[in-house]
Amino acid sequence: MNYQDTIIAPATSVGSGAISVIRISGPDALKLADTVIDFKTGAAMSSEGYTLKYGTIKDLDDVIAAIFRAPHSYTGEDSVEISCHSSRYIVARILQLLIKAGGRMAGAGEFTRRAFAAGKMDLAQAEAVADLIASESAASHKVALNQLRGGYSGELKELREKLVELAVLMELELDFSEEELEFANRSQLQNLLDSATARIGKLVDSFRSGNAIKNGIPVAIVGAVNAGKSTLLNALLGEERAIVSDIPGTTRDTVEEVLNLDGMLFRFIDTAGIRESSDHVEKIGIERSYSSMAKAGIVIGVLDGAVPFKEVSKACAAIVARISPDKTLILVRNKVDSYDAIAPEEFPTVDRSYNVLQLKYPAFGTYDLDPSRLAEKISDYLSSKGIPVPEGISILDISAKTGEGLDTLRSKLVSACGDGPSDLGDATLVTNLRHYEALERALDDLRQVSAGLERHSPTDLVAQDLRNAIYELGTIFGAVTTDDLLDNIFSKFCIGK
Amino acid sequence: MNYQDTIIAPATSVGSGAISVIRISGPDALKLADTVIDFKTGAAMSSEGYTLKYGTIKDLDDVIAAIFRAPHSYTGEDSVEISCHSSRYIVARILQLLIKAGGRMAGAGEFTRRAFAAGKMDLAQAEAVADLIASESAASHKVALNQLRGGYSGELKELREKLVELAVLMELELDFSEEELEFANRSQLQNLLDSATARIGKLVDSFRSGNAIKNGIPVAIVGAVNAGKSTLLNALLGEERAIVSDIPGTTRDTVEEVLNLDGMLFRFIDTAGIRESSDHVEKIGIERSYSSMAKAGIVIGVLDGAVPFKEVSKACAAIVARISPDKTLILVRNKVDSYDAIAPEEFPTVDRSYNVLQLKYPAFGTYDLDPSRLAEKISDYLSSKGIPVPEGISILDISAKTGEGLDTLRSKLVSACGDGPSDLGDATLVTNLRHYEALERALDDLRQVSAGLERHSPTDLVAQDLRNAIYELGTIFGAVTTDDLLDNIFSKFCIGK
Repeated sequence: MNYQDTIIAPATSVGSGAISVIRISGPDALKLADTVIDFKTGAAMSSEGYTLKYGTIKDLDDVIAAIFRAPHSYTGEDSVEISCHSSRYIVARILQLLIKAGGRMAGAGEFTRRAFAAGKMDLAQAEAVADLIASESAASHKVALNQLRGGYSGELKELREKLVELAVLMELELDFSEEELEFANRSQLQNLLDSATARIGKLVDSFRSGNAIKNGIPVAIVGAVNAGKSTLLNALLGEERAIVSDIPGTTRDTVEEVLNLDGMLFRFIDTAGIRESSDHVEKIGIERSYSSMAKAGIVIGVLDGAVPFKEVSKACAAIVARISPDKTLILVRNKVDSYDAIAPEEFPTVDRSYNVLQLKYPAFGTYDLDPSRLAEKISDYLSSKGIPVPEGISILDISAKTGEGLDTLRSKLVSACGDGPSDLGDATLVTNLRHYEALERALDDLRQVSAGLERHSPTDLVAQDLRNAIYELGTIFGAVTTDDLLDNIFSKFCIGK
Repeated sequence: MNYQDTIIAPATSVGSGAISVIRISGPDALKLADTVIDFKTGAAMSSEGYTLKYGTIKDLDDVIAAIFRAPHSYTGEDSVEISCHSSRYIVARILQLLIKAGGRMAGAGEFTRRAFAAGKMDLAQAEAVADLIASESAASHKVALNQLRGGYSGELKELREKLVELAVLMELELDFSEEELEFANRSQLQNLLDSATARIGKLVDSFRSGNAIKNGIPVAIVGAVNAGKSTLLNALLGEERAIVSDIPGTTRDTVEEVLNLDGMLFRFIDTAGIRESSDHVEKIGIERSYSSMAKAGIVIGVLDGAVPFKEVSKACAAIVARISPDKTLILVRNKVDSYDAIAPEEFPTVDRSYNVLQLKYPAFGTYDLDPSRLAEKISDYLSSKGIPVPEGISILDISAKTGEGLDTLRSKLVSACGDGPSDLGDATLVTNLRHYEALERALDDLRQVSAGLERHSPTDLVAQDLRNAIYELGTIFGAVTTDDLLDNIFSKFCIGK
């Protein structure tokens, strides 16, 4: 596939940087550069690939041009990357000059689409370029890089070859269907089929973790009204934000509720305070908090450390009663900084770890300073209400205000996801919705094949299901493509990619 | 001057681009690149300058490194520019790896400061780099580019040499002061001095235009309450905005009130409606409008085309009475679209260009559809009130609502600044406040010299003033510098420049 026209686009975002880069790719890339730039050391067209040239653009700027010769470039075509001073005016003028010289503004993702067309990368790798650029954490970056470097496609290609092998066996049977070959082949088929189905099933299952890694592990912060949920969220985000801002040149426009901890991305879900309420509107809000809990992978239950024990127990019961067992529940008691207000000299004869609050504030009942004793009491309360007590229930003391206990909370969040990015190993994770859907369809097709074999359906029908599965796998890395599919994929890219 | 350490920084803004560039400069630039990047084709340290190398960074990205060998680089030092996929995560990780390998995050403007230290550019050129990046119009860009390419420093250096020549003559006189040499030398000195003073005076004067070009020519839109001032501003900005947005990849964050017309920048000043008022607060607002007029280079007087003639005349008088003669006044009559509502068939026997509005709306008095007749009448009114009539008073009919007449208004704005950027010719314009202040001080010094010569002051006192002027000119392009001066200049740069 050879493109006849030459495309141009800015490759860097025009902002506060020192330089901007403009990309040119296509048969006339070097000619365009020569038309627009005055090179003192001879034309770009007579330059070797992988060299830099200094040149001037009349009345505009002094630039450096990087020369790439086909096929040794990103797109596989002749390419030039012009580095100019980073000014909106200069970039716009250079683009105008290049258009006048015969260039065309590139469409979204057109450079990467040309790289795909030239066979420089397959479709899954092309999609990984966009994922790589968008990745905000070590984990999502690792998945995208593995996909870009071809590891991901490799597994799918191997799987598809296995299915093609299966299809060949089946065609063979089709040819000889009048003879006595059937039984032996069917059992061999079934074995191959089972192994392929298991592998695709595993990939389909990996989408949940893959998606969590790419978009962040959903964390719901739930608790009673005024327990300090928002303060906690701000405290968690605030400190990490400061770290991000330490890296110069990284202006941030990330979603506020995303937090990168030890290379894992967490996506926080805001919730309304949970309490018993007869108010209709408030009830709707509370139900929403419950459904956020249902969507989350991790639930942080925030207990108010400055209210009587009864209230704390009730608030805790409201969370525990509605949590499904596949969630990780982290219970924290917030506002422990308020305990410091109780001076030891006020109650010299009393063990500070027991009933001190009750002495100071009689309304606190049997409220307890020791979090493990509080956990015991809450367990008793839950049992008395017939609510199953979560295994290994424990309570972490924190103060969103002073930051006490937040490091421990962060470690708990990270360890709730295994050992973080290093734990991913080399397992292939599906992070792309398009791939996930294709794999699901392939899985359905294979189940049809399996069912067909079991009930001895006509081989040509079974073979058709198998061909469908092969087709679906092929769409992922681009063995099978349509213009519509390509348009759809690349239109999501930015211009210049 | 040789720097011992190697600095690193992102050179592009990290946003939505396809690639990001990280700059390394210093004695270990190539070594750092080799430590962090795995090059398949041999080390960067054994590569020639002006070449590109493809390489991989383990578990992170595939990159292109551009190799520059001292002194053939921006900074004059060994340098590497790494192009990676544009992701905040990747850029941050590469910077971390480079720091681990011994690099140091560059301070603001440190690359350009090293370029200055290496003699790659003088101080005025270094400052032009920041101006070039910030330039938003063809005119400001042209001034910055001229400064960057050394044209500006050339003139100043020549001027300084003339003063040094003068100083030599004076020292000569000092040596022979006991002899009869004085008269001849003094007259020669005076001639040289007059020519230098005139040239510096011209440069000082150029700051007004230079500053207007750099920051925009101030335009005040004034007029009566409800004359349509804001609608006009929006109409002017709105259309140009659309044109700017046509250039892909140029996300805009310009000040709303800046407009680029034919390569000239206009900076609009919002004003309150002007009318006679006894209200104290309103009076303050109106006085502010007058002081905006005083600051502006161009004043657009907006007359309301849908109110009776008396009111229009009064509003016009309120503007004309307070405008100083050095301003360009453009009078427009807005809302002419409302005249279309008068159907010719309603007044078949009446000349549409005369008194038609009065027929339709008797309250309009002798209001006139023809703008040149309106101008005549307003002139008469102004004369009757004893207000000097501006020369060549004329009124432009416009409709901010439909856009009628706006093209003519835009042309009038552009022609009010001469012929735009092409009119700048090769005249040197001072756009930098620091330079302006140094030139003003030099001018003062030269005037002291002149006065000293006139009153036959002791030559050594006169010579001191002359040396001061030479010093001031030297600070502009950096013949004389101090660390404080350099710190002050480069701290205004961004990191990576």
